[in-house]
Amino acid sequence: MIEHTIELRVRYAETDQMGIVYYSNYLVWFEIARTELFRSKGVEYSRIERERDIFLPVTEAYCRYRAPLKYDDIVRITVKVADTGNSRLTFEYDVEKDGKTASAGYTRHAFVNKNGKPVAIPADIKKLLTMG
Amino acid sequence: MIEHTIELRVRYAETDQMGIVYYSNYLVWFEIARTELFRSKGVEYSRIERERDIFLPVTEAYCRYRAPLKYDDIVRITVKVADTGNSRLTFEYDVEKDGKTASAGYTRHAFVNKNGKPVAIPADIKKLLTMG
Amino acid sequence: MIEHTIELRVRYAETDQMGIVYYSNYLVWFEIARTELFRSKGVEYSRIERERDIFLPVTEAYCRYRAPLKYDDIVRITVKVADTGNSRLTFEYDVEKDGKTASAGYTRHAFVNKNGKPVAIPADIKKLLTMG
Amino acid sequence: MIEHTIELRVRYAETDQMGIVYYSNYLVWFEIARTELFRSKGVEYSRIERERDIFLPVTEAYCRYRAPLKYDDIVRITVKVADTGNSRLTFEYDVEKDGKTASAGYTRHAFVNKNGKPVAIPADIKKLLTMG
Repeated sequence: MIEHTIELRVRYAETDQMGIVYYSNYLVWFEIARTELFRSKGVEYSRIERERDIFLPVTEAYCRYRAPLKYDDIVRITVKVADTGNSRLTFEYDVEKDGKTASAGYTRHAFVNKNGKPVAIPADIKKLLTMG
Repeated sequence: MIEHTIELRVRYAETDQMGIVYYSNYLVWFEIARTELFRSKGVEYSRIERERDIFLPVTEAYCRYRAPLKYDDIVRITVKVADTGNSRLTFEYDVEKDGKTASAGYTRHAFVNKNGKPVAIPADIKKLLTMG
Repeated sequence: MIEHTIELRVRYAETDQMGIVYYSNYLVWFEIARTELFRSKGVEYSRIERERDIFLPVTEAYCRYRAPLKYDDIVRITVKVADTGNSRLTFEYDVEKDGKTASAGYTRHAFVNKNGKPVAIPADIKKLLTMG
Repeated sequence: MIEHTIELRVRYAETDQMGIVYYSNYLVWFEIARTELFRSKGVEYSRIERERDIFLPVTEAYCRYRAPLKYDDIVRITVKVADTGNSRLTFEYDVEKDGKTASAGYTRHAFVNKNGKPVAIPADIKKLLTMG
């Protein structure tokens, strides 16, 4: 299965007055993990948008929060390609701190052109995302 | 059923280079809707935290994105109390633009004290959230 | 002098672990105030970008923080057109809580087209921003 | 002079509909640079807050934006200790892309305790920040 792991450090800006990471920031991290998974396969997501006029808007996002994360924590985020359809793609995420899952989630995406019309996943991208 | 509707205008800061609202911001809006639902029942969430040492961290969050939203759009967000347990609470959200659902989602919360230990939902709050 | 005042309520997401509003969020509020100042003059900034291909990127931003702001605070932000050049514009901001200045700042902007080239401020916009 | 350089990659979430980094995010980056400058001197800012009850709220922030930054850009941020008083501290920042300054700014901070009262900069911290 295609997967990739990134590491990041929690920013002060990502905390809230409860003293822990504000819940929407996990979705930001998911996106960073996706970007780096693409890059690890030799694909720059920024170039997909810019040069091929293909976008991957999120159609669904889910996150379960198990253990809080704090400022300056180092977290590891593993992203997997969980499912690919004709013009759809699902990623699964696992957020770890000190080897334990702090949260987990998924995002579903559509492949669309700049007018928002669904397009088939280009064959080269599909291959990279499914065969490794 | 207990519900409340708020209206807000999309901020420039909430957009991304796709020209639409970045997906994590919906979770921020959900929180605003929750805060205002509490206020509509005479409860200030800020005082629950400050005076009663009770917090409602999010344990799960989900959002389905149907139609993109843009800078300066006026959106209406309706939040409902979907379920209450002993120390748990679920809210459902509907995000509308021009009378059509743009996205929908839910958040689940635990009632905890400042050390993160689950606490029973105080009777007065439970009453307000279930009886109106 | 052209000025406009908006009111907003501090979001939970805007706080940090110090229990106060994180400092970059003031710049987000400044932008909301600018948008509403334009609207109060009958100009939708979103349409300037979309229909006239004119953008106002920020070239400088400054904020002085005097008193902290907290979650659920209601703040009033007054924005003034402080200076207009041929293709430049300065806004000044005052952020108040309970009638006292909590912070103050300014932003400077260039008028550019979508390629980033400076353009003269359109006469109709200049008139609105200087004559009221 | 005490200085430190960090490198980071622009997040999709940090862009706006103009296709460039939204201006408030530079202040977030400044903070990351500060945190890492402290760490490079053997001081964890998170521990200063937690163990010594000392906070460094921002009292002023300024940024000049020269060249826009985009999604996926790698930027280098150099932070310097520009000035230290009894209970005040100024940092200067330079944000570079491809060896050219994209923006520059400064932040001023007060040393305060958790009640917001000014406190003298602890001698050990002052030494680290001024002698290297």
